[in-house]
Amino acid sequence: MLLDASDCQLVLVDYQARLMPAIAHGEEVLDRAGRLAALATLFGVPCWGTEQVPDKLGTMPATLRRACQQVWAKAAFDASDTPLQQHLCASPRPAGNARSLPRHLQKPAAPPRHTVVLAGCEAHVCVMQTALTLLEHDELEVVVVTDACGSRRERDRDAAFDRLAAEGATLVTTEMVGFEWLRSARDERFAQALAILK
Amino acid sequence: MLLDASDCQLVLVDYQARLMPAIAHGEEVLDRAGRLAALATLFGVPCWGTEQVPDKLGTMPATLRRACQQVWAKAAFDASDTPLQQHLCASPRPAGNARSLPRHLQKPAAPPRHTVVLAGCEAHVCVMQTALTLLEHDELEVVVVTDACGSRRERDRDAAFDRLAAEGATLVTTEMVGFEWLRSARDERFAQALAILK
Amino acid sequence: MLLDASDCQLVLVDYQARLMPAIAHGEEVLDRAGRLAALATLFGVPCWGTEQVPDKLGTMPATLRRACQQVWAKAAFDASDTPLQQHLCASPRPAGNARSLPRHLQKPAAPPRHTVVLAGCEAHVCVMQTALTLLEHDELEVVVVTDACGSRRERDRDAAFDRLAAEGATLVTTEMVGFEWLRSARDERFAQALAILK
Amino acid sequence: MLLDASDCQLVLVDYQARLMPAIAHGEEVLDRAGRLAALATLFGVPCWGTEQVPDKLGTMPATLRRACQQVWAKAAFDASDTPLQQHLCASPRPAGNARSLPRHLQKPAAPPRHTVVLAGCEAHVCVMQTALTLLEHDELEVVVVTDACGSRRERDRDAAFDRLAAEGATLVTTEMVGFEWLRSARDERFAQALAILK
Repeated sequence: MLLDASDCQLVLVDYQARLMPAIAHGEEVLDRAGRLAALATLFGVPCWGTEQVPDKLGTMPATLRRACQQVWAKAAFDASDTPLQQHLCASPRPAGNARSLPRHLQKPAAPPRHTVVLAGCEAHVCVMQTALTLLEHDELEVVVVTDACGSRRERDRDAAFDRLAAEGATLVTTEMVGFEWLRSARDERFAQALAILK
Repeated sequence: MLLDASDCQLVLVDYQARLMPAIAHGEEVLDRAGRLAALATLFGVPCWGTEQVPDKLGTMPATLRRACQQVWAKAAFDASDTPLQQHLCASPRPAGNARSLPRHLQKPAAPPRHTVVLAGCEAHVCVMQTALTLLEHDELEVVVVTDACGSRRERDRDAAFDRLAAEGATLVTTEMVGFEWLRSARDERFAQALAILK
Repeated sequence: MLLDASDCQLVLVDYQARLMPAIAHGEEVLDRAGRLAALATLFGVPCWGTEQVPDKLGTMPATLRRACQQVWAKAAFDASDTPLQQHLCASPRPAGNARSLPRHLQKPAAPPRHTVVLAGCEAHVCVMQTALTLLEHDELEVVVVTDACGSRRERDRDAAFDRLAAEGATLVTTEMVGFEWLRSARDERFAQALAILK
Repeated sequence: MLLDASDCQLVLVDYQARLMPAIAHGEEVLDRAGRLAALATLFGVPCWGTEQVPDKLGTMPATLRRACQQVWAKAAFDASDTPLQQHLCASPRPAGNARSLPRHLQKPAAPPRHTVVLAGCEAHVCVMQTALTLLEHDELEVVVVTDACGSRRERDRDAAFDRLAAEGATLVTTEMVGFEWLRSARDERFAQALAILK
């Protein structure tokens, strides 16, 4: 299934100052994260961030932080000690007539954006644990942007991608995200998206 | 399941003059596309082409164009702004007695060729988006010829193949296509097919 | 599921004199085939062979031929023009009382050995086509010994393995076959098996 | 699904003195096994060991042996000639009132720890055969720690991982195990776990 910008949310995981220098190909990973954040801004895709014990590992770069509606500090690798999951599953109250129905007749509201696009570090720790926890929410599609993820050891990173795929996550690249959010060269944001991707 | 020439259609995606030089291993990709087109002609497999904004990216090579029954210009990466999908799903009216049945008793006609063999560029943009859109048609089998597909970056290309496989496309090579359309060394087209493949 | 020697049959596909020199790593492939054939003999696993248009491509080596109960010449890449499939699915008549039952009450006899272990050349033509045709027999398990298979181009070979796995074949190596047929270091054939594998 | 330390058991397979020198990257494999054993001790995960014909292949290193509650000598590659499976599936008797129920009303007791984490040598012989046999117990999850497994030939090892994944095992790395048993940087064992992993 193609990604639909209006159904997506973006989560940037732990791109932190004192972690990134240890990441294999860390600069390229960070470069891709910057493009993802710019694409999210261009397409109005809500973006959230997490930082693992930021007092020790530092904060994420200011350019990434600015793209995030909120950034949560955490100690749990899967961000289960932050409100991230509630935000991702949050749903607007049913509007109009539906509200006048007695509560037990109201349909449970679906989350407004079902596709969670995840990227960050380390691929096999915080990104994978966050993704596997989100995969337990049946109403969410979990998508991982591999070229914007990194680990210290490449073997751990690649093993994370294999396990994520086996457990039901969809693996994509930054360019796939950009061109699926865009869908057509006739979209008015085509030139801007291309400038971000090239 | 083996490919059956009488059940196949071939779609050549965006092998365009100003795109190919940027493709990794672009010459080999184009070489494979030429063989696919020649095989389609030899085995009477209908062949269609697409060109992404040809006023900017140029047209496909004349040898490929000649093999196509029709070539459509498009702006949507998945060709959804062309009649490609209708052509692929088009079905001859039921013949003979069936036509005299009242309409509601007529069986819905199946498409005459259920297997869509896709190849082109970029693997992770127009080829993948076209394939994923076609995969939503349950009556179609979607087959992607990997060695006739390319992207600028090999990582994007390989990620496209992995995602296509995960979503239900069958991945093949040009030689597989040729030898499955042929099926036997005793087929009268054996020498010609071999000349194309070798 | 582990391979069980008493449930296996081995099929050696097209290891022919004028084909092997063109195969990538052909000598190693042939070396592995020799070990497989020796293991089949040691464990009493029935072994069959095929030769593609042997008047043109030559015959298989005498050592492999000797291990085969029968070798069939063929022109169809999937061996469907030989009695291979009937032999693989052949079943002894039901014995004893069952025979006195009226025919419509007799249970259809299961094939005596459900696991077909395949190896040969080219991996993406005759081996793959034979395997995919056998996979349509629901009562057969199809197992392909990857290090005893070869193609001229490695890319075609690897694509064949990926497609075979996706379509339900089990991929193994020669050593896996040997140690699963053996099961225990206490088996009386342990020393002989080890001599074949090392 | 994330690994939960309280649901795991660890099995160390055949890290034996006269086998390890023949294993590709044997020292790194042994190093990872040492970390796994230390993690098991830290998190109170029960650890079992096997040794293949130890009179010929030698014993496992003392540091690994000390982490194991029991080490069984075996000749069967899948350890089916040891009490390993019974220990892994062993379950405490139902306590309290449940025992006073008539036997046919007592719920069958589930095994106390459903996740078996396996590592050892050779990946494609004893580790794979043990894993495939355990996978037949539907109540067990089988997890293989790839970077703590080895074979003499890398091709055999990688083929084992592919086959294990295809048959339902979960593939992880040593670091994944450590960070999933830990779950949070706030866990009191964080510093110790990090010292083991780094």
